[in-house]
Amino acid sequence: MNNDLLKSPGGMRSLLPDMAMELRDIQERIEEVFLLWGYQPVITPTLEYYDSLTIGMGKRMDQGLYKLIDYEGNILALRPEMTAPIARTIAGRLTDIQLPARYSYNAPVFRYDEPQTGRNREIYQMGVEFIGRAGLAADAEALILAIESIQNTGIKDFKLDIGHAAYLEGIIGQLKLKEEQKREIRGYLTRKDIVGLQNYLDIPGLESAEVLTRLPLLRGNKEVLKLAREMVDNQHSLKAVSELEEVYHFIADYGLEGYLNFDPGLIRGFDYYTGIVFEGFTEKLGYTICGGGRYDNLIACYSEHRIPAVGFAIGMERIRLALRRQEHHFALSVPENLLVFNRRQRIFALKLAKKLREKGEITITVENEEFDREIISLAKNKGLKKVFNCTFDEESIEIIKPGINSKTLLKIKKGWEEKIWDS
Amino acid sequence: MNNDLLKSPGGMRSLLPDMAMELRDIQERIEEVFLLWGYQPVITPTLEYYDSLTIGMGKRMDQGLYKLIDYEGNILALRPEMTAPIARTIAGRLTDIQLPARYSYNAPVFRYDEPQTGRNREIYQMGVEFIGRAGLAADAEALILAIESIQNTGIKDFKLDIGHAAYLEGIIGQLKLKEEQKREIRGYLTRKDIVGLQNYLDIPGLESAEVLTRLPLLRGNKEVLKLAREMVDNQHSLKAVSELEEVYHFIADYGLEGYLNFDPGLIRGFDYYTGIVFEGFTEKLGYTICGGGRYDNLIACYSEHRIPAVGFAIGMERIRLALRRQEHHFALSVPENLLVFNRRQRIFALKLAKKLREKGEITITVENEEFDREIISLAKNKGLKKVFNCTFDEESIEIIKPGINSKTLLKIKKGWEEKIWDS
Repeated sequence: MNNDLLKSPGGMRSLLPDMAMELRDIQERIEEVFLLWGYQPVITPTLEYYDSLTIGMGKRMDQGLYKLIDYEGNILALRPEMTAPIARTIAGRLTDIQLPARYSYNAPVFRYDEPQTGRNREIYQMGVEFIGRAGLAADAEALILAIESIQNTGIKDFKLDIGHAAYLEGIIGQLKLKEEQKREIRGYLTRKDIVGLQNYLDIPGLESAEVLTRLPLLRGNKEVLKLAREMVDNQHSLKAVSELEEVYHFIADYGLEGYLNFDPGLIRGFDYYTGIVFEGFTEKLGYTICGGGRYDNLIACYSEHRIPAVGFAIGMERIRLALRRQEHHFALSVPENLLVFNRRQRIFALKLAKKLREKGEITITVENEEFDREIISLAKNKGLKKVFNCTFDEESIEIIKPGINSKTLLKIKKGWEEKIWDS
Repeated sequence: MNNDLLKSPGGMRSLLPDMAMELRDIQERIEEVFLLWGYQPVITPTLEYYDSLTIGMGKRMDQGLYKLIDYEGNILALRPEMTAPIARTIAGRLTDIQLPARYSYNAPVFRYDEPQTGRNREIYQMGVEFIGRAGLAADAEALILAIESIQNTGIKDFKLDIGHAAYLEGIIGQLKLKEEQKREIRGYLTRKDIVGLQNYLDIPGLESAEVLTRLPLLRGNKEVLKLAREMVDNQHSLKAVSELEEVYHFIADYGLEGYLNFDPGLIRGFDYYTGIVFEGFTEKLGYTICGGGRYDNLIACYSEHRIPAVGFAIGMERIRLALRRQEHHFALSVPENLLVFNRRQRIFALKLAKKLREKGEITITVENEEFDREIISLAKNKGLKKVFNCTFDEESIEIIKPGINSKTLLKIKKGWEEKIWDS
């Protein structure tokens, strides 16, 4: 037997019910919030044309894409995120869609990553896109929705780091730099690699600004915004700081300002952000649990129309891990009843099982000629609440509580069975 | 602007909320039934190793697979169905899993099909696998669960065609045929191509059985089983007919025999079936809405253990189309309230929106300096129930019903707002 046949591809795996049920619980809690805010689900294809993905996200994403040639010779790729596919969809259906539109999704995305990172390569995401509204109120809506969604999963002790794409762009824009040099600088800042950045900026002939090396340290509560304002003198960066302040006040009016942190120079992995950007994290987990921002130019990559938009994605598996670390109790739907029957009592037993399910009790049925005491220990292991023995004799059934002493709860004559399903 | 950038790959498409919400409604109704029967969700990777998929499903599936080479040089493929990936998962985790196991899934699968067929190439499926139980009761459980799941979506007038893999195998097994010849015969039978089959069987030197050409006509209510028995004299086929009869009686005990049809020579698209097989269809739709059967040898392809199993998959998009044809009314969660506020009333308005959502009312908020009568016509178009005007003045709010006459329901002084959320 070839053991390789048992494997799933690197960074991808199967989740058995114990984990899958936890994810499902989280999904339901997040979806509840999305719906209450008026966000409705959209579905996009798992595969997209390669060109269509990269025009939106920037060529930089190319490295991590799973690409393939289809039967018609086209280059396709598995989507590495949902924002570009939704932007493409909107651009193609502008005549059908009433803006503003509030969309949500729940979908896997695919990113190749070096094996040593240990990261998942199939990532379960839920998120929203709020399309067709510029301005503060829409930015604040996205942020508040992110906070309330994560709150509703049960996560405690999380914060959102908020920055603004225009803050850094304003600083870099003042310098006479080549596109490649700008990209290098953004790279160091993304990794918060101050030493690397300093060495890079020391290259003779490279026009530099001392403020760049201070950016990675600029992170904290709203006092940081004062510092951020003092550090710059260009209009773009100053406007960015003002917008961050306004968003803060909006969210404070809602009462959620305690969840906010500022990191004005925050850089996200995608090129399409134009305004506020943010990332969520918990103290107990070493990586972000959500991320998003404003992308006012992305839809214009696909159509002639510039349509402002803002959105975010939540990493479901990371939320699950964060909840596990805080020893969260998940609300899982698990089987309650086991109903054992033999051939002679089948009609009665099936009817009883149907009634129990109609009452909303999760019920498993087993056909066995003999009622076996092992069944009770099995039921005990699975944490079932009641075992219905319909093999006992032809005249009656027995209901057993498979606890420590496997107590018989009830032994009743048939004909009296209405009592069971009316109780 | 390159219009190709707006497209999704052939046979794949984006679903906007109108359709996506319908699919979601169907999913919830099916999941409800799966859970009540004790089936719990599992998740498997979208990508699998190519060899791992084909060993389970047979090389025949190869033609329709979307294949790719990953960054480590492995051949991967997008799963074309969920049974083989779940079988692989179980084979690899036999020490963790308590059998029997009842698993469910809700996942897209991918099959390339010629463009002219107009078929979707990304197919949304929900299904179950009942693993670790042989025999009639498990077969009947799968069939009843399929019927109740489809019933619960609201579909009327559907039937399950039931056959048995051993019925045809018994007939073919008696003939001295090469594997390739058997495959050809199965191909004609799958397509119900009687003329093609007759021509093929007329080839000199090919050992044939007249019964083969009568198989495609053998379809109908349980009377067909008598005919099916008379037509054969080998033990395999006779046992297959007996099993079909027993399953019929089991399901009749449950009261669902009206949904059954028999097609003893029914052939499904996968090679792994060993026992009962079935397909569901509605009168109004030209294709199957679900399919499944017993596959007792599949898990042994991945491990040394032969573990019996039975399962089925439901095609979600086909269920949606069938429901649309019968003019089904979907239960959709749509926005109810629109709350318009200006900067001065923001704190109050956000608090009100929060309260409305806490009451479970889906509420959209809009920040606008002026309250615009256009907002009401927008709300009318979207079918909203109430518009809360929090721009009216600083002292009061107005609640408007955006119906034909945009009636003012209530105009209240603030401080009295508790009335709104307690009402």
